[in-house]
Parts: sequence; C-alpha cells; structure tokens
Amino acid sequence: MTVPGAGMTADIEEQPAGYARLLSAEHTGPIARVAEAVARRRPRHVVFTARGTSDHAALYAAYLTEIRLGIPAGLASPSTITVFGARPDLSDALVVGVSQSGGSPDLVEVIRVARAAGALTLAVTNAPQSPLAGAAELSVDIAAGHERAVAATKTYTAELLALLLLVEGIRAGDGTLPADERAALDALPDLAARTLADPTPAQLAARYRFAARLVTTGRGYAYPTAREAALKLMETSYLPALAFSGADLLHGPLAMTDPDVPVLAVVGSGPGGRAMREVLPRLGERRADVVVVGSADVEGATRMVVPEVDERYAPLLDILPLQRLALSLALARGEDPDAPRGLKKVTTTM
Amino acid sequence: MTVPGAGMTADIEEQPAGYARLLSAEHTGPIARVAEAVARRRPRHVVFTARGTSDHAALYAAYLTEIRLGIPAGLASPSTITVFGARPDLSDALVVGVSQSGGSPDLVEVIRVARAAGALTLAVTNAPQSPLAGAAELSVDIAAGHERAVAATKTYTAELLALLLLVEGIRAGDGTLPADERAALDALPDLAARTLADPTPAQLAARYRFAARLVTTGRGYAYPTAREAALKLMETSYLPALAFSGADLLHGPLAMTDPDVPVLAVVGSGPGGRAMREVLPRLGERRADVVVVGSADVEGATRMVVPEVDERYAPLLDILPLQRLALSLALARGEDPDAPRGLKKVTTTM
Repeated sequence: MTVPGAGMTADIEEQPAGYARLLSAEHTGPIARVAEAVARRRPRHVVFTARGTSDHAALYAAYLTEIRLGIPAGLASPSTITVFGARPDLSDALVVGVSQSGGSPDLVEVIRVARAAGALTLAVTNAPQSPLAGAAELSVDIAAGHERAVAATKTYTAELLALLLLVEGIRAGDGTLPADERAALDALPDLAARTLADPTPAQLAARYRFAARLVTTGRGYAYPTAREAALKLMETSYLPALAFSGADLLHGPLAMTDPDVPVLAVVGSGPGGRAMREVLPRLGERRADVVVVGSADVEGATRMVVPEVDERYAPLLDILPLQRLALSLALARGEDPDAPRGLKKVTTTM
Repeated sequence: MTVPGAGMTADIEEQPAGYARLLSAEHTGPIARVAEAVARRRPRHVVFTARGTSDHAALYAAYLTEIRLGIPAGLASPSTITVFGARPDLSDALVVGVSQSGGSPDLVEVIRVARAAGALTLAVTNAPQSPLAGAAELSVDIAAGHERAVAATKTYTAELLALLLLVEGIRAGDGTLPADERAALDALPDLAARTLADPTPAQLAARYRFAARLVTTGRGYAYPTAREAALKLMETSYLPALAFSGADLLHGPLAMTDPDVPVLAVVGSGPGGRAMREVLPRLGERRADVVVVGSADVEGATRMVVPEVDERYAPLLDILPLQRLALSLALARGEDPDAPRGLKKVTTTM
C-alpha cells in the first residue's frame, strides 16, 4: 500500500543531496563545457521556452541572463511557432528549452525550428536521451534522478541550479566559476537541509485548511518562486493560487485581497526584497493575511524563515518551505499529492 | 450623485467609436510614419515593457511581431533594470513601452536606459505629453480620450488597435496597409457595436453571482484576452480569476478545476481556436462549468458569441463581452466598478 504523499515527501527531502550531486565535478564539468560553447558564440539575445514548472525555472534564468550577463532575455510562447507557424529570425539568438521530461512535442518543435534558423540551441532536461535533448545542439543534464510524484519539486530546483551554473559559467567565459561564487554554491546543500528541517511549513498548513484561495507575490528573483509556489498549491491542494509580481499586484489585483485572502509574500534581503517593502504596507491597508517567506526580517509578520544568502541563490532555498506547505496542505485536505487528479507526468501539447 | 458603474459603462460603450477614430487618417497617418521609421531601422528583436492591463496589450503585440513580422519578441520585466540595475545590450532592439497614463516611473526608466544603450525606443500611450512619451524616440497616441473608470477598458482596446496598426504598417514597410487589411480593419467598429449589443454577458453575470473563483483560458492571440478578462474580474468583482494558456492549463492547474470552478474559454475560428479544441474535452473530464467566448461554434457549449473575424483581429472583439460580464457581475455583487477598493488610476512602482 502506498502512503499518500510518500513520493512527494521523498522528492522534497532529496533536494540537498541533489544540489550536492549537481555541484560535483561529474556534473559541473559538462555544464562548464556547454557554458564555454555558449560564451564563444556570443548570442545577442536569449529566448527561453518551457511549460508549467519549468517555465518558472526559465523565468529565473531570464532574470539571471539579463542581470548577470547583460544579454536581453525573454520567454517565448511555443504556440507562435507550433500553432501559428511563425518563423522568427533567430540567427543571433540562444534558444533554450527547459523541460524535466524533454518530451513535450511543442518544445521539441521550437528547438527544431530555431536550430534550422541558425540559432544556437540548448536543452536543459532530466532526460539526456529525450527528444528535446536530441533536437538541440547543446544539452545540460540536471541529474535529479527519478521523480516519484507528478508535481515537480526536485526537478524544479535542479533546473534552477543547472541554469545558475550555466549562466555563471557563461559570465566567467570559460565555464570556470570564481572561487567566491563556487564557495557560495557549495554552502547550498547544507543550507537547504537546514531549511527543510524547519517545522513551520507543516504547522502553517493548518492555517490554510479552509482557505478558498491564496495569493503569492515576490519581485525579481523571488517572482519565479511565487509563481512556482502557486502552481504547487494548485496541483496538489486544488487551491486556486494567484501569483503576481509585487509591482503588478498594485496594478489591479490588490483590489481582490481582503482579510479572507491569505498572501504568501517572498521577501529576501537584497534589491528585490527591498522593492517588496512598498508592497507589504499596501497589503496591510487591505488587512490581508500575510505570511512572509524568505530571509527578510519583516517586523510583526508571521514568517517562514529561510537562511540569508545572496538573492540570486535564494530561489534554491525559498521554494523549499513552500513545497512542504503544499504537501502538508494537500494531506490536511485529504488529497494525495503524489497523484493529483487530472494530471499526467508528461504533458503533450502542441 | 454618481450611479455605480456609470463610468465603466460609458467607457465600454465608446469603444466602437474609438476604433473608428483611431482608424481615421488623423491617427493612422502618424502611426504609419512611426511604422516606417521602425521598418527602416530593421530591429533584430523587440522587447515590450508594460504593467497590468497594458501588459496584456503588449503580449498581443509580441504574438503579432513574431507571427506577422518574423522578429523575435518578448516581454521584459522592468525590475531587472530598475531594481537590479541590469544594463542589457539592447543596441539591436526595438524597446516598446505600453502604458495608458505614460506615468509609470519604472517604464520611463526602462525606456531611458534602453535609449541610452542605443535601442530604438517607442512609447504607446493615451497621453502624448506624458513622461513615457517624452522619454522615447518615437511615440504613438492611442487617442482613447479620458477614461472614467479606474479599470481600463477602452484604453486597452485602443492599445490593441494601435499596436496592430503599427505592426501591419511595419510589415508593409512604408506604413501603408494593403487594401484587404484596411477593409478588414474598417469593418471592426460595426462588428464591435454588434458585439456590444448582445445581452448575453449581463444575463450570464447572474450565473457567477456566488462563484468563489474563476478560470480563464485561451491560446495564441486569445491568451491576452483570457489574461485581461481575469484581471478585469479581479479588479471590479474581487473574484480571484486565474488565467492560463490552454497548453499551460494542462500542465498542472487542470487539477484545480472541478464543477465548482467556472471556466471562460476564449475560442476563435483560427489556429489558436483549433488548438483549444484539445483543451475543452479535458475540462469536460473534470466536469468543469465552461462558457465559450468567441466565434468558434462549440457544440453543446454555453456561449458568448462574437462575430467571426481573422483571429488576429479577434482580441478587439472577444474582450468586449468579457468587459461587460465584469461590469455586470460587479454591480450584481453590490460593488462599484468605477472605483475599486485599494486602486488608483496611475500606479507608480519602481
């Protein structure tokens, strides 16, 4: 007999070990070689293409690409190519497909079209033998191992870390990370284990047992975390969760928040976290029920505390209590997060 | 005494006249000259930057740019520049800021930085004297007139039409539209008036009086419509509304839909609408309550019918019944959609 949530629990708990594995020479070596190949080609802009959870990893990588590399980056909707037959001139571009399964036919088609148009193409997947990896000129293996639950957790963070290693490797030029960067990365497995040891998320699940909806928000690097947390809550607890950048929240959706709408605000200690400080009082005016996730010490707030790191690394830690919250809440609601209704592990859309 | 919703009602009703005005030589002439200037500079990629409702117009324009011009396009998060200090190399890019007020300091800053970096910059606003229009090298006036309600309606569709005229003008090269394109556009004011005459949206509002949440979905050109409809429902009826591309819906959020979650599916008669046909049965399996908006004749579905046009023009019609639904639902719930709680007409974020 399977225990509900046993798969997702195991996937979540494996993440510190997954970080350590991906940071070992066996995996950083191949990623460094891919980074070097990209740096040599000097793409003028970067286009990411992904679906679902991987779309949030791609969004993180787009922020990294613009901020750390100074290269314009964006997320492409596959449908312009796959549904409408667009053939954009991608000859100056690096086109990156991100997918744990590497099996989405629409992403494979985007990579195929981009490659034929002269783009440098790269697949980031958990399946080095997948059609996506086969279609791209370059590929990165996120090496997360078999994921038990349908809802992606360890493959999401492995995508984040692989994309971070890739971008920092491109920044270095030859794929070799500076010593301080390397030291900061090497601290992550222990910090992740410490984050996962905190009992707060399971306790907080009780708070949301009867919530009818939820809002997540963050800015900059924390925005992908807010989006991924919302998706996890929808997939496992069937709780409608709306994710907004802190700035977009003030442009309309703020009206919807009231004391009945819980808000999970991802607030770090860097520029993105500081920018969120203008959002929190506005939520206070609406008497929203706010829980702060991250390293920022927000006075008086209920918090899920995460160790302080550079905001660039925070997505690798901030998502962990949110994954655990989704898991605990699903179980509290009598659902099995390992096998959400209506979902399959590999989703094929065109 | 002001009647609740009087402003939003008037704004909505003005849209057919607004289309006719923007299609007059007084406005198409200046847009054609901007289009010609852009075509001459041959940008290698296009970056749109916007917030809230204007972000959905920008998303529409990004689809148009890729499909009609074959130029890669994406939406930029202003925060990489304004919060994290990124200075991406935009020298090959056209950077377009879309904002009804032209007053968002973050968008002004993105345009300023992009222009200093050598990008061709363009402002699309309802305020030709605004800081955004002043900061950009080129600017387009959407000429929608004063908008009474806080929730944007006629400025949204004016942004859509101005961006459509711009893209088709760039495609033509000298800004002069082909005769068949021009004829199709000239039909839009009457089609919009016919769409607004349909009483269905006001009747359907009763159906959602006690809904606790709502999902909107569409693919391709219809996806911005789904996003804008969700925002309008959140702003005016405080109804949490989640928008998904039809493809992304199948990658997770589908689990959340059940008979208690109403779904508004925007389904046209072209490639995007055909791609939505794989989504509808999946919603049926989850026994979701689906209403189909658009020109597609979906058998057995409750529909808000919109006249059939090329899918490229459909966003100018499909949003109209959805705006009216948001208005009617807000009134049915005892809210004043002209002045949503917690919102201001000009939102200033950095």
